[in-house]
Amino acid sequence: MEKDVYQDPLVSRYTDKEMQKIFSENFKFRAWRMCWIALAEAQMELGLKQVTKEMVEELKKAAEEEIDYKIAEEKEKEIRHDVMSHVYEFGLHCPKAKGIIHLGATSQFVGDNTDLIQMREALEIIKKDLVNTINNLAKFADKYKSLVTLGYTHSQPAQPTTIGKRVTLYIQDLLMDLKQIEFAESMMKARGEKGTVGTQASYLELFNGDYEKTKQLDLLVSRKLGFKDSFSVSGQTYTRKFDTIIAKALSGIGESANKFAVDLRLMSTFKIMEEPFEENQTGSSAMAYKRNPMRCERMTSLCRKLINLPIDFSHTHANQWFERTLDDSAIRRIILPQLFLLTNAILKLYQNISEGMIVFDEQIKKYLREELPFMATESILMELVKNGKDRQEMHQIIKEHSFEAAKTVKLEGKANDLFERLLKDTRLQLDKEFLNSLIEKPERFAGAAAIQTEEYLKNEVEPILVKYSDFIGKSDSEIRV
Amino acid sequence: MEKDVYQDPLVSRYTDKEMQKIFSENFKFRAWRMCWIALAEAQMELGLKQVTKEMVEELKKAAEEEIDYKIAEEKEKEIRHDVMSHVYEFGLHCPKAKGIIHLGATSQFVGDNTDLIQMREALEIIKKDLVNTINNLAKFADKYKSLVTLGYTHSQPAQPTTIGKRVTLYIQDLLMDLKQIEFAESMMKARGEKGTVGTQASYLELFNGDYEKTKQLDLLVSRKLGFKDSFSVSGQTYTRKFDTIIAKALSGIGESANKFAVDLRLMSTFKIMEEPFEENQTGSSAMAYKRNPMRCERMTSLCRKLINLPIDFSHTHANQWFERTLDDSAIRRIILPQLFLLTNAILKLYQNISEGMIVFDEQIKKYLREELPFMATESILMELVKNGKDRQEMHQIIKEHSFEAAKTVKLEGKANDLFERLLKDTRLQLDKEFLNSLIEKPERFAGAAAIQTEEYLKNEVEPILVKYSDFIGKSDSEIRV
Amino acid sequence: MEKDVYQDPLVSRYTDKEMQKIFSENFKFRAWRMCWIALAEAQMELGLKQVTKEMVEELKKAAEEEIDYKIAEEKEKEIRHDVMSHVYEFGLHCPKAKGIIHLGATSQFVGDNTDLIQMREALEIIKKDLVNTINNLAKFADKYKSLVTLGYTHSQPAQPTTIGKRVTLYIQDLLMDLKQIEFAESMMKARGEKGTVGTQASYLELFNGDYEKTKQLDLLVSRKLGFKDSFSVSGQTYTRKFDTIIAKALSGIGESANKFAVDLRLMSTFKIMEEPFEENQTGSSAMAYKRNPMRCERMTSLCRKLINLPIDFSHTHANQWFERTLDDSAIRRIILPQLFLLTNAILKLYQNISEGMIVFDEQIKKYLREELPFMATESILMELVKNGKDRQEMHQIIKEHSFEAAKTVKLEGKANDLFERLLKDTRLQLDKEFLNSLIEKPERFAGAAAIQTEEYLKNEVEPILVKYSDFIGKSDSEIRV
Amino acid sequence: MEKDVYQDPLVSRYTDKEMQKIFSENFKFRAWRMCWIALAEAQMELGLKQVTKEMVEELKKAAEEEIDYKIAEEKEKEIRHDVMSHVYEFGLHCPKAKGIIHLGATSQFVGDNTDLIQMREALEIIKKDLVNTINNLAKFADKYKSLVTLGYTHSQPAQPTTIGKRVTLYIQDLLMDLKQIEFAESMMKARGEKGTVGTQASYLELFNGDYEKTKQLDLLVSRKLGFKDSFSVSGQTYTRKFDTIIAKALSGIGESANKFAVDLRLMSTFKIMEEPFEENQTGSSAMAYKRNPMRCERMTSLCRKLINLPIDFSHTHANQWFERTLDDSAIRRIILPQLFLLTNAILKLYQNISEGMIVFDEQIKKYLREELPFMATESILMELVKNGKDRQEMHQIIKEHSFEAAKTVKLEGKANDLFERLLKDTRLQLDKEFLNSLIEKPERFAGAAAIQTEEYLKNEVEPILVKYSDFIGKSDSEIRV
Repeated sequence: MEKDVYQDPLVSRYTDKEMQKIFSENFKFRAWRMCWIALAEAQMELGLKQVTKEMVEELKKAAEEEIDYKIAEEKEKEIRHDVMSHVYEFGLHCPKAKGIIHLGATSQFVGDNTDLIQMREALEIIKKDLVNTINNLAKFADKYKSLVTLGYTHSQPAQPTTIGKRVTLYIQDLLMDLKQIEFAESMMKARGEKGTVGTQASYLELFNGDYEKTKQLDLLVSRKLGFKDSFSVSGQTYTRKFDTIIAKALSGIGESANKFAVDLRLMSTFKIMEEPFEENQTGSSAMAYKRNPMRCERMTSLCRKLINLPIDFSHTHANQWFERTLDDSAIRRIILPQLFLLTNAILKLYQNISEGMIVFDEQIKKYLREELPFMATESILMELVKNGKDRQEMHQIIKEHSFEAAKTVKLEGKANDLFERLLKDTRLQLDKEFLNSLIEKPERFAGAAAIQTEEYLKNEVEPILVKYSDFIGKSDSEIRV
Repeated sequence: MEKDVYQDPLVSRYTDKEMQKIFSENFKFRAWRMCWIALAEAQMELGLKQVTKEMVEELKKAAEEEIDYKIAEEKEKEIRHDVMSHVYEFGLHCPKAKGIIHLGATSQFVGDNTDLIQMREALEIIKKDLVNTINNLAKFADKYKSLVTLGYTHSQPAQPTTIGKRVTLYIQDLLMDLKQIEFAESMMKARGEKGTVGTQASYLELFNGDYEKTKQLDLLVSRKLGFKDSFSVSGQTYTRKFDTIIAKALSGIGESANKFAVDLRLMSTFKIMEEPFEENQTGSSAMAYKRNPMRCERMTSLCRKLINLPIDFSHTHANQWFERTLDDSAIRRIILPQLFLLTNAILKLYQNISEGMIVFDEQIKKYLREELPFMATESILMELVKNGKDRQEMHQIIKEHSFEAAKTVKLEGKANDLFERLLKDTRLQLDKEFLNSLIEKPERFAGAAAIQTEEYLKNEVEPILVKYSDFIGKSDSEIRV
Repeated sequence: MEKDVYQDPLVSRYTDKEMQKIFSENFKFRAWRMCWIALAEAQMELGLKQVTKEMVEELKKAAEEEIDYKIAEEKEKEIRHDVMSHVYEFGLHCPKAKGIIHLGATSQFVGDNTDLIQMREALEIIKKDLVNTINNLAKFADKYKSLVTLGYTHSQPAQPTTIGKRVTLYIQDLLMDLKQIEFAESMMKARGEKGTVGTQASYLELFNGDYEKTKQLDLLVSRKLGFKDSFSVSGQTYTRKFDTIIAKALSGIGESANKFAVDLRLMSTFKIMEEPFEENQTGSSAMAYKRNPMRCERMTSLCRKLINLPIDFSHTHANQWFERTLDDSAIRRIILPQLFLLTNAILKLYQNISEGMIVFDEQIKKYLREELPFMATESILMELVKNGKDRQEMHQIIKEHSFEAAKTVKLEGKANDLFERLLKDTRLQLDKEFLNSLIEKPERFAGAAAIQTEEYLKNEVEPILVKYSDFIGKSDSEIRV
Repeated sequence: MEKDVYQDPLVSRYTDKEMQKIFSENFKFRAWRMCWIALAEAQMELGLKQVTKEMVEELKKAAEEEIDYKIAEEKEKEIRHDVMSHVYEFGLHCPKAKGIIHLGATSQFVGDNTDLIQMREALEIIKKDLVNTINNLAKFADKYKSLVTLGYTHSQPAQPTTIGKRVTLYIQDLLMDLKQIEFAESMMKARGEKGTVGTQASYLELFNGDYEKTKQLDLLVSRKLGFKDSFSVSGQTYTRKFDTIIAKALSGIGESANKFAVDLRLMSTFKIMEEPFEENQTGSSAMAYKRNPMRCERMTSLCRKLINLPIDFSHTHANQWFERTLDDSAIRRIILPQLFLLTNAILKLYQNISEGMIVFDEQIKKYLREELPFMATESILMELVKNGKDRQEMHQIIKEHSFEAAKTVKLEGKANDLFERLLKDTRLQLDKEFLNSLIEKPERFAGAAAIQTEEYLKNEVEPILVKYSDFIGKSDSEIRV
């Protein structure tokens, strides 16, 4: 690593080699070669006589040869055109085909199709990471589906739920993200090849005005590059709206992961759950004992960036003029890789954390015991209504006692005396046994949380895990803390 | 209109009454009543004995009675709870059912389901506006599919295309937006009713632990409110991710409309196309003759706002803690209506403009004539390559002559002398007749633009217009300029 | 309030009448009249013979007369020009001056100057709210400057600080916001009057080419409108960069208030501090006892919106073409009021909360006692280093014991046994008495927090409170919860 | 450059080595050493006996020695703490001082102070680039102060202005940006050293409770690092609000540069002005003759990214909890360098373009001639008013004729016949000679544009250029197109 030059931490610290490679020069320029080969082969197959079978074979054979960057760069200095420089460099590997490389094509033919190939490959990694994270969470939710814990609304103790049920909420978000990604993929097409401003003009020339052949060329090239279809109409580029669709889908992962990470940071503060820690991980130099939720904090940090990224894409699409302006270029060079690298970094963390989350049962129970009398008020209210009392009136009475009991705890640090207060109030006519029965089994306050978890995992999660079973276990979740 | 208080211009200036109404107090509180009726009826149908048929009828009968806001507001001042105040107000209309309104429910039962109903209804208007805009553009594209015009890349004259073909690019964007909206709709479910933190606890109490009944209640209520299903799991609220999906889909319209509006503003500057003008519309007080593209400028203005709106939704979702925090409330009160009002305002403009765009054929031809010799260089290059010349070399020669000719125009204000220069260059051996033939018919430079337009309209647009044929002509595009 | 039309909750729920009024129609159109009067008077003073003293007096006398909106609206329907319609309406009040209203001026003369007047007046309210909030916080910080509490880093217990010291961090942010506002004000100038595209062309005509007079006119008008100066150069409008400066400054308040509100929500979760509650405020219908931090949640909600607002302004400035495009109009109508209304709503909440925050001393002490042994490790480490031990080595040993003690707490729910562990370790040679002495007085771990608070209040806050002493107590902090 | 790994184009393509270096590892870790030296020296000067003069000398001598990254990385793998690893590595260079490096300090002591040093140094480069750009624009404005050109409002021809006057609008924006940067600098302080949570606890221990000494230490360290002062209060970090102030100031440059670049792209479309071109720069492979405004397009592209960047900073500040959470870390590692690299890249382009802008006088004049009769209407109106006619009435008449004349041009492609129409209208009683006199000298429509430019340059720009005269000519504006 060059020590005198800024290094993007997304590369040097947070992401997979696999993902970094997709946005490397080697990947890009090899994809250009694939485009040229697909074009030449399609032209040959469609009977364009300038392009011979021999040439195509030569191109194919040369595809994997090393790229001579030095030559390409020198050529670029001379002719100031990156595509033509690499046409030249590739031509040196293919003396016979040299003259027909990029024939009839515009720079965006290689540029746009390569971007789309990169996105397609990168999305595979993202989906793999995502499915493995969902798988981890599902196993965890299943394990803890019946562990009752305080629910929190307004960040205040509320009716209990279970740890597993809470985790289904994270899974639900990720499943919705996955659906958005699948939707985005369904919108993905090749840019294909339709010439400078999308009118097929140069190919009509080449094919002597045979429009059907230009259409077939466009489709053939797209198929050879691994796409089912190409965008039906285009200017010089495919519509930048497609980029926004991808960006918005991926930023959804940032939102979901942020919610999860903040929740886990809070649970870590409460000492009820924790992210995994390495054996020799240090809290901080000054406070060695601390178990800082650094992975979740890093997730939050990266999520924030990812969440804000789509507006870059949106304004880029919105401000393209006519058949194309180049103000999409520099920004896309930055934000397309950043989009996938960030998502990769976040999902690596999410996967890593979801694999090894620690649960502190005893602490969870302690909190429950402290709040259960309060928790029981909803049941008491239901009971009173069942007994024929007026809901509003009973609600008011219970409220007053609850407020007093809460004050006792907060102001005096004493124990919760709510039940004593309720028993004393003759308007309620409550039975001590009934009250005590309420808090003996905390699961009664958690409603159907356990069975909801079970059903959710079975009905909604399992089908997805089956669908993507090939991905499971194939993702590397090791991170550098 | 109150003159001493700020009035949101989205309401006072830019939007439809129909859309404004969906986000009004009357709509909201009537939807609350619908929720209470659905709940009571479902409870009765599931055999909950507290709720009688008589009560349900009473509720239904009272549904459309005027809401007494004064009473509700006074009650709210007293008990500081908006839902319970309206439970009280509705109860005054239904003396028998009074005690069972909102039975077992949490505030979010009415809150969230009402939000979802509002979104569902508002989306109908949006789709109607969108389809009518697409319809207008399709008719326009068909009419001008063969009108050749300069293409523009880098905002510089490029290979010609046709007016119609350019318009297909705007349509393509809108069709992709429509697909995003349809996708978002496919993700829409009712919040249903699952109690305070989503565990069904209070309903399990009511139904004496019968879990299946609580599930049926949830589903029945959702169906009665017009949804196919409810979100499988929830905290106190449905996941705010759904809001982000809607927001991102609608902001796509902002992006598409912005691109269109900026293009039309530029075409208006070039005097080749214009937005419609009212008979007595004034340019400005000082420069009366001006035909300012004010509708497009307003569109750009509103689009910018809409494009930036999704991050509000994203951060709201990302920062919800546990089963719910209330920091989603105030912001959603602002941004949910704003989202739909902005989209409505933009589509009203888009529809209005696309209905009456003006084309200046003579100006379009004038520009073409000025640039055609330059335009012809691609064809000349193709010809030279066909004649066996080296592409790179020919490219270089033509480039030099083009630069010189361009200088002549810009620096001396003289006519384009490119052809004279090319004919003189012996390396090219070009024929005068050939060159002249090139610029005689501008359509030859527009490639397959006309047929592409035709096919696009037939294959991609028509099926959508057929699918949504009920919407066509049903949308009001009148605006206040 | 109109019940069938959407009502902006910023107006109906969250803001002051005073602020709402600034962005009302009455304020705006009265400001237009002020502009016309200033212009006429300046023209007269500079000797323009068309404008007589009599006319100016007539205008001044008519300034406060009711605006006849009906007439203005009818005129606007006819001539489609809002400024000329109000010129007409004002003219009806001033038969003599009728012909010289708006003489030589462009629409932006009234538009831009009015926007600037609105911003100036609104900033006064913002500063008043801000100063009162700072005043509240300062009093609170002073009161609690010595109350030791756990510090939190990574949202984990860290070295203690004091409640007062923590509050100085909130004050510091607000003081920096105030400085940004003062800076923004220092950049504020009138748009003055320089004609259609800023060249003074029409005024040069009126003054027969006397450039000095046009300059004086510009300055005189600006002064009469209460500004020290006007922007030196302008297109049709003042540079929209100024709007971005204001927006960025105010969004700073959103950031600061968000940090404060989230902290207080967390402290409320920990039950160590709380926002004020009304006597009869309800937690929720289901859980009556809850003290939900609803004001802080609302603050967070509104802050998020305010934080995201500046990009609307930035893109508006960045995309203005040449001497002016109208795509600044609709968006500014929305975001300028929203900017000030949001800030007002947030500061009302901040002021209200900071006036009545509740502190639970006993809970704070409880937490401290639980964590103090851990807290003491830094002091123990310092002591060991003072005793000549190697810092790194000691650090490692303490770390291991701390990890074990922390495990005991979390996994077994037992008491903290760190000191026992340390005393047993012969490598450390620690003295029991020394260890116990460490936790007897929690203030020893809070370093200089108390005195830092004192000095900060004296050196940094007091001078500001003195500077703005006129504002203190003049702001209404009543809110609707 | 590594070819299998993603490379940030901001580094590989767009920025200066000088700027890249500031955010390099070498710069950072050398700054850490500077912090440790400053701390040790200050401790020694304040009489802390553990730190001897000999140690400090040893540290100073070792400061410039090569950093052994391999050793630091191995240590980090072992102890998982980057700061302590580099303490260790530096210690190897300083056997005597080894034990007192980082004495009493927290990680953020080196982290935060280094960030601030980087920002300070990077701001110098930014200011240098900015001043040189202003200087270029000022020279250009002066040269073209009298060249009359059409003004544009609504992107439609409006009253003329001059090229120089238009450029003063760009300068005004940049001067306002510079003022914002100066303001931000005035808010910049060192983080100094106040211990783990900002309470000075560890230093009070070291200095046996002597508070004054801890204060002096904080100040001394800050001064030694080149700052005038340190933030008066802090948590574990300096308030992240400061980052937002810097980010907002720099994003202002993005807004200004975007407006300029879009304007120049439009002028390039109109063929009235152009950015500089290299001798051998190619338009595109297909259309060799094109002079694409690629630098301006790249500027627009990068500006868009810069404009959207501050929200990352704002949410980071707004979501810091208590004395510090680590979710500021990963994002700041990305956005702080990105902020300065983007601004650097944009200003390099701006400087390069402003140095060599090309003006096409003949084209400018051509446009003027076409529109002058329209332009003259304002003058005609003023004349008619001077002659005692009613402004509104005359305005209406002229408007009608203008509309007709405009139609003739657009629909029929014929010449502008406005004057003929006006002369025929007896209500106006206009004189042919008067009308012709109006368009003979276009400068009469440009009002005071020339003199405004002159005065602006003299009164507002020159003082700034004098203030920063050291910077002028010192900045490298060479770019890679």
